[in-house]
Amino acid sequence: MSLNQMDLSVLFSSSKYIRDLPMPELRKDPIVGRWVIIATDRAKRPITPKFEPALRDGAESCPFCEGSEHQTPQEILSYRDRGSAPNQKGWRVRVVPNKFPALQIEGDLQKRGEGIYDKMNGIGAHEVIIECPHHEVTMATLSEDNIREVLWVYRDRLVDLKKDPRLVYGMVFKNVGAAAGASLEHTHSQLIVTPIVPINVWEEMSGSLEFFNYRGRCIYCDMIHQEMAQEKRVVLDTTNFLAFSPYASRFPFETWILPKIHSSHFENIQKNEVDELGGVLKTILLKLESALDRPAYNYIIHTAPFDTQLLPHYHWHIEVIPRLTRVAGFEWGTGFYINPVPPEQAALYLRETAVDLNAIPR
Amino acid sequence: MSLNQMDLSVLFSSSKYIRDLPMPELRKDPIVGRWVIIATDRAKRPITPKFEPALRDGAESCPFCEGSEHQTPQEILSYRDRGSAPNQKGWRVRVVPNKFPALQIEGDLQKRGEGIYDKMNGIGAHEVIIECPHHEVTMATLSEDNIREVLWVYRDRLVDLKKDPRLVYGMVFKNVGAAAGASLEHTHSQLIVTPIVPINVWEEMSGSLEFFNYRGRCIYCDMIHQEMAQEKRVVLDTTNFLAFSPYASRFPFETWILPKIHSSHFENIQKNEVDELGGVLKTILLKLESALDRPAYNYIIHTAPFDTQLLPHYHWHIEVIPRLTRVAGFEWGTGFYINPVPPEQAALYLRETAVDLNAIPR
Repeated sequence: MSLNQMDLSVLFSSSKYIRDLPMPELRKDPIVGRWVIIATDRAKRPITPKFEPALRDGAESCPFCEGSEHQTPQEILSYRDRGSAPNQKGWRVRVVPNKFPALQIEGDLQKRGEGIYDKMNGIGAHEVIIECPHHEVTMATLSEDNIREVLWVYRDRLVDLKKDPRLVYGMVFKNVGAAAGASLEHTHSQLIVTPIVPINVWEEMSGSLEFFNYRGRCIYCDMIHQEMAQEKRVVLDTTNFLAFSPYASRFPFETWILPKIHSSHFENIQKNEVDELGGVLKTILLKLESALDRPAYNYIIHTAPFDTQLLPHYHWHIEVIPRLTRVAGFEWGTGFYINPVPPEQAALYLRETAVDLNAIPR
Repeated sequence: MSLNQMDLSVLFSSSKYIRDLPMPELRKDPIVGRWVIIATDRAKRPITPKFEPALRDGAESCPFCEGSEHQTPQEILSYRDRGSAPNQKGWRVRVVPNKFPALQIEGDLQKRGEGIYDKMNGIGAHEVIIECPHHEVTMATLSEDNIREVLWVYRDRLVDLKKDPRLVYGMVFKNVGAAAGASLEHTHSQLIVTPIVPINVWEEMSGSLEFFNYRGRCIYCDMIHQEMAQEKRVVLDTTNFLAFSPYASRFPFETWILPKIHSSHFENIQKNEVDELGGVLKTILLKLESALDRPAYNYIIHTAPFDTQLLPHYHWHIEVIPRLTRVAGFEWGTGFYINPVPPEQAALYLRETAVDLNAIPR
């Protein structure tokens, strides 16, 4: 079952899923205090947000394909077959500097003011993780082993960049499809490392610290327990990971993946967890692609800042955000989000979307 | 000169505007503490963000055109010619409830918890301001008088909704073009009134209060003085208003309009200010349309919450945001924005874009 080219409202026209809220509901994210409007009426608009196709630009001139290594800057890291040389064929996963970086690694910070304004040099790192040598357009069709190697690369790069005292935060993320901000099709992720802790991360850190100071527990761990008990927002439940639609989802089919065992830093992930997460990530992406006809999406790894020790209040996690709706003036102005799909319905739909981990790629 | 169908990079290829930053720069918004990366290198990407055309859906079946009054819910307010009856022809500006509302006016809040989560009923108002009776697709071609009446409608609705003790905040905004979240073409704005103060407004309120407590001045007033002294980010300077590209612009060609005389609440605007703002708003929109080939955009009126008295630290303003770039995973994850156009260059470009306030609409 796929929502190919259909309105979100179709999701609600089948009797099984038609379970309108009696009225719009305001829900609060317990971590950062952000309110979301769950408004199913909005899904019935005659012009509902369209699914935007992912980018398609062909393999001919792809700088990320094996054999085009000269088209990228010199590689920073690669996992490669024995005997192959850097910047040549033979790699499985490859990391290169972004050719058009948002931040640069050379120089010093030079923090300074200009009247009431503050600025500093854009010191940092902006790297591209090319996830496979052949022209795959989606991570979901990579083998589980391949995905595991991508996860190891994320970890290796974070561990390495952490040594630079000018840098305090590393954000791993993925843009798939033009609507999600991607400019190249070949499956890849990015890593941006910044000299300051991003404001969204600060809000998560301080919100979860406040909860910890009051209750002595990690709010993310509490969330895992409540979601496992209630079940209705769970998408996938494995030995070490829980994937669910968050209670105050900002976006339709937003899905979070959390390790069940408390851990604040992604880079401390255990081998058995990486083994399992390869399958979990593949399953979630396959479910989203199958249910929503290969939507544009982002995923983002939220982890603790470099300069922190193990934190009892913070819990690393992956946020997967399909980009089905456009963010409009109201969202920009308020920070409120309007979501036409209740997370309970999104989770039910995704839970029931069957996927075959061993299917041959399309 | 128009940037029709061209990359943002074209803006930098003319010798006049080519003034690359030596390296990316991090700039901090002094009000909410949000950091922005000004990275001109990003504008040179081979696949730069495309200008997305505004929505075009034709006038045939437009529910907002004069004569189609029966296609909307019953009007809440209209400015109309003498002798014409409600919900009939003869109106100049008309306010109706949104047919697919994000929030509903009936009911009570019923705040309640569900384990660690909080929710309440989605009580509020969601209104549509139809700005003119004929099928104009842009506010910029409306007469100054027409725009003034739209501004008066904003004010009248805020004053009226303020009386409802369940409601604490009113956000006036405008979505133009699909990329900005619009679903109808006929020029219109919206008003969403909420039972809680939106998080972004809280951040502005508390950031400006902190500055006030420390320095005894309004930070927005300070910003106006610094911008007028430095001039390089000023787009338009009139007797009562200043329009400029903010120092830490999140988006290319982001433009703020502030009243020069301190005022925390938009609804307290003076008659002579409305008279002037009609022309200022028209000028800014014409400049953006001319310079950027009618981009999709949002504007949002930021004003103080209903339940506050006159505030010495907060300053109402309008934020105009052309939607030229897509927000990607990095922005969602971090709250950092990457802006490829330095605001000094955007302001220079807009300043020099000549517009004719009396031109006959295209």
